[in-house]
Parts: sequence; C-alpha cells; structure tokens
Amino acid sequence: MAVLRWGLIGGGEGSQVGPAHRMAARLDGLFRFCGGALDVEPNKGIRFARSLGADDDRCYGDWREMLDRERDRPDKLDLVTVATPNATHYEIASAFLAAGFNVLCEKPMTMRLQEARDIVRLVEKTGLVFAVNYGYTGYPLVRHMRAMVGRGDLGRIRLIKAEFAHGFHADAADSDNPRLRWRYDRNLAGASAVFADAGIHAFHMACFVSGQSATEVSADFVSIVSGRELEDDAMLNFRMDEGAIVRLWTSAIAVGRMHGLTLQVFGEKGGLRWAQEQPNQLYWTPLNGRTEIIERGAAGLSPEADRASRVTVGHAEGMPLAFANIYHDLADAIVARQSGPRFDPFDCNYPTARDGFRSIAAIEAAVRSAADKGAPFPIDPS
Amino acid sequence: MAVLRWGLIGGGEGSQVGPAHRMAARLDGLFRFCGGALDVEPNKGIRFARSLGADDDRCYGDWREMLDRERDRPDKLDLVTVATPNATHYEIASAFLAAGFNVLCEKPMTMRLQEARDIVRLVEKTGLVFAVNYGYTGYPLVRHMRAMVGRGDLGRIRLIKAEFAHGFHADAADSDNPRLRWRYDRNLAGASAVFADAGIHAFHMACFVSGQSATEVSADFVSIVSGRELEDDAMLNFRMDEGAIVRLWTSAIAVGRMHGLTLQVFGEKGGLRWAQEQPNQLYWTPLNGRTEIIERGAAGLSPEADRASRVTVGHAEGMPLAFANIYHDLADAIVARQSGPRFDPFDCNYPTARDGFRSIAAIEAAVRSAADKGAPFPIDPS
Amino acid sequence: MAVLRWGLIGGGEGSQVGPAHRMAARLDGLFRFCGGALDVEPNKGIRFARSLGADDDRCYGDWREMLDRERDRPDKLDLVTVATPNATHYEIASAFLAAGFNVLCEKPMTMRLQEARDIVRLVEKTGLVFAVNYGYTGYPLVRHMRAMVGRGDLGRIRLIKAEFAHGFHADAADSDNPRLRWRYDRNLAGASAVFADAGIHAFHMACFVSGQSATEVSADFVSIVSGRELEDDAMLNFRMDEGAIVRLWTSAIAVGRMHGLTLQVFGEKGGLRWAQEQPNQLYWTPLNGRTEIIERGAAGLSPEADRASRVTVGHAEGMPLAFANIYHDLADAIVARQSGPRFDPFDCNYPTARDGFRSIAAIEAAVRSAADKGAPFPIDPS
Amino acid sequence: MAVLRWGLIGGGEGSQVGPAHRMAARLDGLFRFCGGALDVEPNKGIRFARSLGADDDRCYGDWREMLDRERDRPDKLDLVTVATPNATHYEIASAFLAAGFNVLCEKPMTMRLQEARDIVRLVEKTGLVFAVNYGYTGYPLVRHMRAMVGRGDLGRIRLIKAEFAHGFHADAADSDNPRLRWRYDRNLAGASAVFADAGIHAFHMACFVSGQSATEVSADFVSIVSGRELEDDAMLNFRMDEGAIVRLWTSAIAVGRMHGLTLQVFGEKGGLRWAQEQPNQLYWTPLNGRTEIIERGAAGLSPEADRASRVTVGHAEGMPLAFANIYHDLADAIVARQSGPRFDPFDCNYPTARDGFRSIAAIEAAVRSAADKGAPFPIDPS
Repeated sequence: MAVLRWGLIGGGEGSQVGPAHRMAARLDGLFRFCGGALDVEPNKGIRFARSLGADDDRCYGDWREMLDRERDRPDKLDLVTVATPNATHYEIASAFLAAGFNVLCEKPMTMRLQEARDIVRLVEKTGLVFAVNYGYTGYPLVRHMRAMVGRGDLGRIRLIKAEFAHGFHADAADSDNPRLRWRYDRNLAGASAVFADAGIHAFHMACFVSGQSATEVSADFVSIVSGRELEDDAMLNFRMDEGAIVRLWTSAIAVGRMHGLTLQVFGEKGGLRWAQEQPNQLYWTPLNGRTEIIERGAAGLSPEADRASRVTVGHAEGMPLAFANIYHDLADAIVARQSGPRFDPFDCNYPTARDGFRSIAAIEAAVRSAADKGAPFPIDPS
Repeated sequence: MAVLRWGLIGGGEGSQVGPAHRMAARLDGLFRFCGGALDVEPNKGIRFARSLGADDDRCYGDWREMLDRERDRPDKLDLVTVATPNATHYEIASAFLAAGFNVLCEKPMTMRLQEARDIVRLVEKTGLVFAVNYGYTGYPLVRHMRAMVGRGDLGRIRLIKAEFAHGFHADAADSDNPRLRWRYDRNLAGASAVFADAGIHAFHMACFVSGQSATEVSADFVSIVSGRELEDDAMLNFRMDEGAIVRLWTSAIAVGRMHGLTLQVFGEKGGLRWAQEQPNQLYWTPLNGRTEIIERGAAGLSPEADRASRVTVGHAEGMPLAFANIYHDLADAIVARQSGPRFDPFDCNYPTARDGFRSIAAIEAAVRSAADKGAPFPIDPS
Repeated sequence: MAVLRWGLIGGGEGSQVGPAHRMAARLDGLFRFCGGALDVEPNKGIRFARSLGADDDRCYGDWREMLDRERDRPDKLDLVTVATPNATHYEIASAFLAAGFNVLCEKPMTMRLQEARDIVRLVEKTGLVFAVNYGYTGYPLVRHMRAMVGRGDLGRIRLIKAEFAHGFHADAADSDNPRLRWRYDRNLAGASAVFADAGIHAFHMACFVSGQSATEVSADFVSIVSGRELEDDAMLNFRMDEGAIVRLWTSAIAVGRMHGLTLQVFGEKGGLRWAQEQPNQLYWTPLNGRTEIIERGAAGLSPEADRASRVTVGHAEGMPLAFANIYHDLADAIVARQSGPRFDPFDCNYPTARDGFRSIAAIEAAVRSAADKGAPFPIDPS
Repeated sequence: MAVLRWGLIGGGEGSQVGPAHRMAARLDGLFRFCGGALDVEPNKGIRFARSLGADDDRCYGDWREMLDRERDRPDKLDLVTVATPNATHYEIASAFLAAGFNVLCEKPMTMRLQEARDIVRLVEKTGLVFAVNYGYTGYPLVRHMRAMVGRGDLGRIRLIKAEFAHGFHADAADSDNPRLRWRYDRNLAGASAVFADAGIHAFHMACFVSGQSATEVSADFVSIVSGRELEDDAMLNFRMDEGAIVRLWTSAIAVGRMHGLTLQVFGEKGGLRWAQEQPNQLYWTPLNGRTEIIERGAAGLSPEADRASRVTVGHAEGMPLAFANIYHDLADAIVARQSGPRFDPFDCNYPTARDGFRSIAAIEAAVRSAADKGAPFPIDPS
C-alpha cells in the first residue's frame, strides 16, 4: 500500500490532541505528514510544521491558504485532520469536504444540529471518507464487544451502563483558571459542558457496541462548582431504537476517578464489562455461567479484535494504538473508495458523519430535557 | 456485660436471613438465643427452635402466642428480631414495641408510609431500642466513611454515586420460578421490586455516610424481563437536604454483577470509593492528591471503624461480621437505655425507625416519579 | 446436635488470637464456652473467664489446676483449645491428650521435632480428635482448590507458588520493641522466625491443596533488619512426594504487603490463583482456555466448598468464618468419634497432628539448608 | 531535530518483534526506515523491505551485503537494529559496531560471555551508541521507580521480588511444536531457556531500578514438561553489590499467567509494586504509611517519568510506547554523541552493552548454580 499524504489543521505546539494525532497517523507507516496549518498564529504554525518535518511548500499560515493552495495540486492530500477549537470545526470540515478532501474531524463535529446535518449531506453527496474522532472505539476489545453483540452472543441487548467520570475540574479554587473557565461558559462552549466533552464518548461507544441509535433522552444536569453556567455532572437515560436502555453518568468533579470511561452491556444471554483504564481485559459473563476474562491478543477473538491488535497477549496496548486504529481504518477506507464505487461512507469501523450528527442530536435533546426537569425528549433521528 | 436474652420471629429452616441473624447475634457472645416463633407452620417452628437450643418453654407456634407469653415474664427478652415475610413486619414489630420489647426489624420496616410513621411514633413514645436491618452499614469502612464525612475530610458533600446491581433475576426462562415471581407482582411485593429490595440498601448507605436526608427524587423504572409488573432495573436521582446529589442505579438483570453494592462519595476536598464485595479496602483521594488505600484494621482509622473491626489488618472480614456490628450496637443501646434517660432511639450507629421511615418515603416518591415519566417528586420528610 | 463443651487455655485479655477462637467457636452455636485458664496471672485469668460468661466452677488459675479438676468430671469438656505462648504448646497439649481430651492446638504444635512425634503417637494411641490451627485452610475456596485438585481438574500438579509476605516488621527503628524483638531471638522463638511464624501457613496450604507431602527443601534465609538473629525474609524450594515443586516466599519486611498469603497452583491441565485478602474469588484457567472467576457461594461448587460457606454469593466472607470452619469440622469429628470406631484422626478436613509434625519437620530441614548455603536437605517423613 | 536514518536486520514478514521495532522507531517521527536485510531468504527480505517503503537502493539480500554497501555511504545509517535469530546477534552486532554504526541489538546480546565482553570493549573503544533491547524498562513508571530509588525515597534497598511467569509453554501435547521445541534444546537455544528468554527481563529491570549489580546467584532450574532439556521454570536468588537481595521467579508453565512481569521493591523507607500488564499504575507504600496509587501522567512525577509519557493521565499507555522510549533515548544519545565528546555509552537510560554483558554473566552463573544443586555461584563482574 502506498503511503498516504496527510495534512493537519490545528494541533500546534502545546496542544494535547496534536501529538496524539501525529503518533496515530505515523504508527503504522500508512500516512506521511506532508504539512498543514497548525496554529492560529501563522508564523508559529509554519515554524512548528517545519520542525515536524513537513514539506517546505506545505507549511501554511492558516487553513484558508492551505485550502486554496492544496485544492488543485495533483499530489492532493489523501486525508486532512481538523483539530482546531470546537467552534471552527464545521466551517473548516465542510470547506475541505466541499473541495473534495477526505476529512477526520475532532469532536464535536459541529456546534449546531443544522450544521451537522449539512456535513452528513456533504458526505452523502461527495461519497468522501469522513470520520469524527471518537477514538476510544478503536480499542480492540471495544471492537470485540461490538462483534459479540453483532453475532448474538448476548441475545437482545437490554441495558447498557456507560460512564465517563473524572475529577479534574473539581477544584473550586481552580475554576477561574482560563484553561477551565471557557468550558463552562455557554457562549464559548455551547449548550453542554461535561456531557458534550466527556460523556459523549461513552454515548457513542454505547451506540457503537450495541449497533443501536438513541431515540429519546431524559437528563439531569447539575453545575456543582459555583459560578459555572454549564453542567459539570450529568446523569442521562436513553431509549434506543431496538429497545435497549442506556444509563450514562458523566462527571468532571469525581475526585479520584482518572478517566473513568467504562461500559457494561447486559443482554438476555450474558453481560460484558470493560474499562478504558485497563483496556486489555474484557469481562464476559454468560447467563448462569462464570465470569471469564477475555485478554486482548488471546487466541479465539473476533477478526475485528485481531485486526485491531498489534502486540502479543499479555503486553499492554493503550490509547495511542486505539487511536491509530482509526487512522488505519481511514487508510483502508481511502483505498477502498479509490478502488471502486462500492464504498459506503456510513458503513465503517470508524465513527462516521452520521455518528457525529447523532451525537449532536443527543446533546441538543439532553440539554432540553435537563432544562425541563428531566422530562423525556425525542432525539432527532436523521 | 450480662448476656442479653434474644428471641427470633421468622428465620425458620431454609431461610437465608435466619442463619445470618443467628450468627450475628451469637458472634460476640452478647446475646443468648432463648427462643421464638420461627415458622408459619407451628410445629416446624417449635421443632426448629428446639434444635437450635432454645429454652423449652420459649419455643412458640406463632408470634401472637409468643407475645402473650413473653410480655409478662420477669426475664423478659431483651431483643426481638422480626425476620418474617415483608407484609407482616408492621403488625408484628408494632405489637412487640407496644408491649415494651426492643425490636430489630428486617427491612422493609413496613409496606406503607402511614405504618412507618406509626412505628416512628411508637418508638418516640416508648423510647425503646428499634432498628431496621440495613446491615451493610455495619462494615467498619462504611463507618469510617461516615466518620470522615462527619469530621469534614471531604468538605461539603457534592455527589454520591451509589449502586446495587446484580444479575440473579436476569434469566427470562426462570421468571416463572415462584421464588422470583412474587417479587415482581404488585399484589405480593408492594409498589417496587428491585429498588425496594436491593437499591434501598444503597440509598440508606448514602444517607448514613453523608448524614443527609433525601428531599426529592426523580426515577426511571423499567421492567426488562417480560411479564414483570414491577421494575427489575432502576435509575434514581435524589436531592439531599444539605445540597448533595445522590445518583443511584439498581438492577436485578446485570448479568455478571454479583452483589454490586458500591458507594462513591465526592466532596469539595476529596473522594471516596468502596465496594461491598471487597469491603476491607477503601479508596480515598484528597483533592489534587494521590489515591490512598485505606485498609480495615490499619493504624490511624477513626474510632468508629476501630470499634467495628475484630481481626488484625490484612485479614478479610465479611458480611456476617458487619451484621454482627448491628447486634453489638443494639446490645450497647439496650444497656444504655437501661442505665439512664439520656438514650435517644434516633441517634444511633444502627439504622433507626426514622431511617426505616425515610426509606419507605423514598420508595413511595420514587414510584410516583417513575409513573410520571421521571418528574421530580418530593419525599415526605417526617 | 447437642452443644459441645469448650475450654480455653491462654487467649487472655489483650491477646489477638483469643477473640478469634472465641468468635470461631461461637459462630455456629456448636460449642459453649465453659471456662479455662486464660492468663499466666491466675487472678487475671479467672476474672477474665468470668467476664466472658464461663461457669463459676470452671474458671482456673492455671492449666494444671484445670487439668486436675476437669479430668474426672462427668460433664467433661469436649474440646480444649491451647492458645498459650509457643514454648508451652507441647507440654499442655500432650498433658490434655494424655488425659483424654480432644485438643485444638495453636501453631506451632511443638518447638522440637521429637515432641511433635510424641504428639502424633499420642493421637495414634488415643484416637482423640486433635488439630493444629492452620486456620486459613478453612476458607471455602481453599477447600474448593483441594477438591478440584483431588478430582483431577488440574491433572498432575507441577508447581505451587506460595507466599506469605507482610511488611509489619520492616521498621528498623521499631526493632527493639519487645513485641517484635523476641520473635527474632533464637532463644525465645526457636530456630526460625518468619518462616515458622508466617510462611508455615503457606506451606501447610500448599500441602493441603495438593494432597502431597514435602520430601526435601532448599532455603535461603536472610536477616535484613540489623540486630536480628533469625530470618525476616526467606525463599524456599520444596520437592513434594508426588513430584510437585513448591516455591515459597515469606517476608516480614515487604512494606506495603498487608497479609500476603497467596497460592498459585499449576497443573498439567490448568492453573489456580487465590489470595487470602480477597478470599471470595478464585481464578481458574483451564489449559488453553480463558481465566474464569469462581465466586464463593456460586452454584456448581464442590460439596467441600458449599459446606464451608455460610452466606449467599456476592457477600464477602472473611477469616473468622474460615476459622469457624475448623471448629465446625472439629465438632463433626468429635461427634463422629463418639459414634463409632471408624473415625480416623489423621483423615480430616482440619490440619491434624501429622500436619503439625510435617510443618515442624519442614522448619527443621529448612533451617539446616539455610545454614548450609541452601543445599537441599531431606525432610523427616514420619 | 533532523530525522535519523534507520536500518533493520531481521524482523521480516511474520516476525513478532519486527513490527514492534518498526512501530517504536516510527512513533515519535525521529527515525525514518531507510532499508535493511529483513529475511534469511534474500528475495523475500528485499520484497518485504520495499513493501514497507524502504529506499530502493537500500533493500538488501543479507546483512553482509548491507554492511559492505552501507559502510562508506555519506548518508550513513544513524542506527541499525539487529533482530535476527539469537545465535547471530554477536557476529552481526560486532561487525556493524566495528564499521562505525550505532546499534540496537535484540536480546540476548550474545550467546557466550566472551562475546559479550568483546561487545563491551568494542563500545568502549568506539564510543558508539549501543543498546540491548530490554524494552520493558522504557515504561514511564519503571523509570519513575528508578528515579525514586535514586533519590532515596526508599532508603537503602533491601529486597526485590521480580517475576516473569507465563503459561504459554505448558501444554505437553504442544511440546513437539517446532515453534516451541528449539527453545528447550540445548544445542539450539543455549544453556538456559525460560530464564534467558523471559526471566532475564525481570533481572535487568531489578538492576535498572535498584542501580545495583548482581554478584552471586543461587538457582533452582526445573524442566517440567517431559522431554525438555532446558528449564521451563526457575527460581533464583541474587546478591547485589550494594546489599540488596533479588528473588526472581520465572516460568513458562504457569497456566493463567499471561505475561507476568512484575517488580516489587522493598527498602528501609517504603515499598513499590508494579506489573507490566497494568503498567499505568504504581503502588507505593511509605514505611508506616498508606499505600498510594501513582498514576502515569499525573502531576508530581519525576522528570524521568514525565519525559517517557506521551498522553494525559487516565489514558492507558502500553508496551509499544515503552519500546518507543528506548528509540527516543537512542535518538537523543546519537545526537549527544555527534555533538560532543562528553557522551558516555554506558551511562544511559536504555540498557547498554554493559547491561547486556551482565545479563549473560548472570545466565552463565545461574546455569552453573542450578547444575550444582543451587550452590551459590559468583557472577563475573566485568
């Protein structure tokens, strides 16, 4: 497979997500970092891109310049990653899609539902490869859970218990810290804080594993640290289109919890438990049977899990490799799309534009439910 | 301390809770089993009481006979435990209270809120020792959590995450099993199944540890296994009188979860995590600090925890010893009451009649909220 | 079953092991504490026995007085527990055996091998019930391991990895503390410290679970805290009579380890792992299969495990209940012996005089091996 | 930093270690894979190198050809990784060193001690960068343990308990499998099997963390599965030059253990525990204090740990990233060496030639001790 050309927007010096994207893109040697527009300050971005080994003629001062100059190159970028501040995702991603680029967009895909719908339509129209970065579904054992559910090991899925709870925004003395403050300000962060930022990963994972979509939500949002407009702790109950219930807790004030992304899936024929902090073990209990520990890399796993594994059993794999699986899948999708008309941009291992839309729809409905004392609110299906 | 005289109602042959009470009463040598009415079938009960070493003249065919014959004895029973089917708790407990006996009543204390109020008034009037058996609060490290909260280690309590989730009612093929069936039948079990039966322990523990009372609840009840009238899975959000929020999940269909009683307490200054299945470790994270493992029996614990511990650090203690702590506390209370007027029957280590009332009130409010799509419902405070 | 009469020697006020014996004897209601000689100071012992509810005429100033007065009573004690300082075990236990009493002796059974041989012969001669208190084998899941090995689930046993490592003697500044000091003094403690005190439990458990006896040992003893004559850390390799190897580490300086009694058993057809600090779960991996978690109290366990369990699955059981299983087995043995000639005092669930002998033999051989740079040393078989 | 030129010998299609090296070299973008000799079959190796994107003129049929053609290129390879079968390491590594290349050599560095001594001298003479791939010391929390020991947090180190126990060679029915068979054949694998292959990682880690060297060893080797010449289970006791004791268990027949590389370090002032399978948590118990959980990525860690971390706290990192830290350190060393004379090839974060030598010396001494019934044997110090 030829090495694909990859460009990055955002993710400049000091960014947390930038290095993760660069590691993930690089890990399997499928992408070459060609260049991009890495910083709001043009000179800083150009300098940083150069220091990372970008091609001289592909270090840009801003994304518009990048778009102008890249759109007609014969050696077009195969993938553009958008890792800029949230409010700019829609404008940049849709511009690059419209110009014919495959895009990996950081979450949230957009700030508003109508914009998310636009992205879906652009992808439908162009047939381009497009992903939203709910990267935790790249873990091999998350893929294995989905495979087990898909092949019926659990029977009908009854209930999913999902969590994403951390304690890193718990310090009231730190709440004026600008790094934190904007997250709880409605004007800067949008309609939701901890659910849109953290809990949404758990939501997407519940959908990904169950293969179901949410139709209704009841939400209890609270702003625990004083001075915050938006929620820093939330409990949500979802109804899914094939009957499952998803109960989701997310928190930023849970002192002692580090990352706290966990999933428990309960079906007619068994239950599964998985935690992102110990991602190489999956606990499976068949109905009336004993709990078994499924090890990543062990013999007898699903092809989906095997394909997403890189080292032998007993060796820990972590988040950067999960993330790299998204890039690996994107590489496969880019090649598949190039090789024929049968590529479906919404039927992929990675989170698609439709998943991005559904997440935004879930956030909007949850915000309304929370504002109405938790009354159930329907979730826009399309 | 003289050995106290103890009688038992219910808990006959084959009962699960009977042996637990007998072990707990016996463990510290503070109570002697004198007799009781152990079975609905008089002869069986009498025979069984004898086989357990009861005094010949104190083996009764039913509780009314027992009450008649015991009430005027000079060597009156110091404590009567009521471990009969739920629907009979009120009648028996109130009759023995009215006759001047100290009572330990299995939960639920009553089936209706008005009855619970009656019990509280009887205890107020008589000043007798009365406990409801939420026995899990007898664990040393649960006592330690309460002590830490009480002395301010966590600052103001913000949020409690409580769970009691098991999977032993998950098998649809087993749902006609008479042992299970009655639990989900409104006529036999009352207005709530899994919350009233299992989740209520987590609710009481949240109140016990936080020292707060619930004022409002929003509940989502679902009957997952078909044919069940009552809920087998529930999510509840409580507001507490001093501002804490309690999020409580309880389930009987969570295949792979064994007992699943856990508590996480988050305050301004730190967080705590504890699980009934590994009760000898408590995880404490001070704000901005490292998680510490607090071992039962280690040096430096609270007097409340030390007092409830029996063996040295590193040795597991389990549920029967937690339970025995309730009996130990009752013995102390009985002695305290005998020795002076300063005994307050509502200010005790063990769960009091007021705790029993609050639990019933919480169940009633939760049932109403669940019936009204989760709209918040106030909880009767008194 | 009639309640058995039980007497105690040692275990006075402030003793650690005394309360454990009293709880264990009391828990199932099979024994009644009648009296004993509880303290080296006669008056203290008499007072304490009374405070515990002993019969007035059975509170003794010392064990010789007790023996004199008890030996000819018609209502003879059914069981005498010896919980005095180590150096006195032999004299007391053999005297009571010789006078026809059933005995539970704290470990070590004796200080010298010849004395241990005497005890075995006394038991052979009298056919009395005699146990040494390696109480950790009373845990239900330890019994289950033995049952699994016995019925061949693991095939031939290849290797056992046993540990008993704690860190409570690690503080050099505390080493003059009289509570610690005697333990490392050859004149007071005998030839071995941490192996004889702690590691020996792991040794006995390895024998109990495998059903094999040790024939040879190679030992590396070290005295890590300066000023200690005897070892505070040791590594031992045993050869067993049916081919298994036991590797045993024991330590008193392993800071952070609390109790650290663990067993791993590896056979041709699978492996087992168990830890005393989390005694309600056993990890079982069939060869080429997945690890399964066996829960105490779950369906499908061996009769040996079921019999030793008291509460339902998911509820923690701890050390005092394991200990109580030894008492329960003793009660059964006492009744079996009374009811006929088929009782074999060396074929029991509890650790017998022969187990006591083998432990002393292992200690003696280990001490010699350690003194000879770890050269393998045979263990006296009889 | 300019991207360094990297070549690979061995690690062809189907190799396990090859992909790990490629991921590790690529992850931080510090090395570019230029080419190499990847397979014993020349054409296969050339084809595979091309498929991985090697430069056309740097795909070689064998390592001699590679050496001939690379030695005089102006754009010399900055690092050559040797990942060929064990018996060839010495010849290839020494040839490349002699020709002036920096080398990363898979373990074991050599098959004989004299060869290892040669490598050390070559490195002394040339001052080149040379590492042996004990890659597990690349884990951030292993670096943190070393830092804690180095700065005195534990006081004098008393004892290290090290393990590397797996169960993947336990199946007697599989022992004729050629993939396994050579490992236990003295002619093919050398003098030791499981210790040289697995346990040696634990040995190096103990040295790395303690900063001490082994001076003496006593070993118990057993061949458990019949038909094996070499040991598949071993217990070793080491004496270290600054007084620590290392007790090391390694096994290939421990069914249920997956990787089982763990380290426990006990000093005068505290103890540490770490396990490769859960590498993002380190357990630290200060003397007389509570166990604390140190999280990779948390605030307040040592610079050594911070430098080796790539993603934020709570996100799992795994073995490929640990491995990449070795490559990162090598890149730094290569640059340091180029920039001045102060580079010391034996004072590095990664395992040096001297570490390689010491491991071979430890294996040789252990084999002799095991052959002499565990009599202590000195380890060649230089």
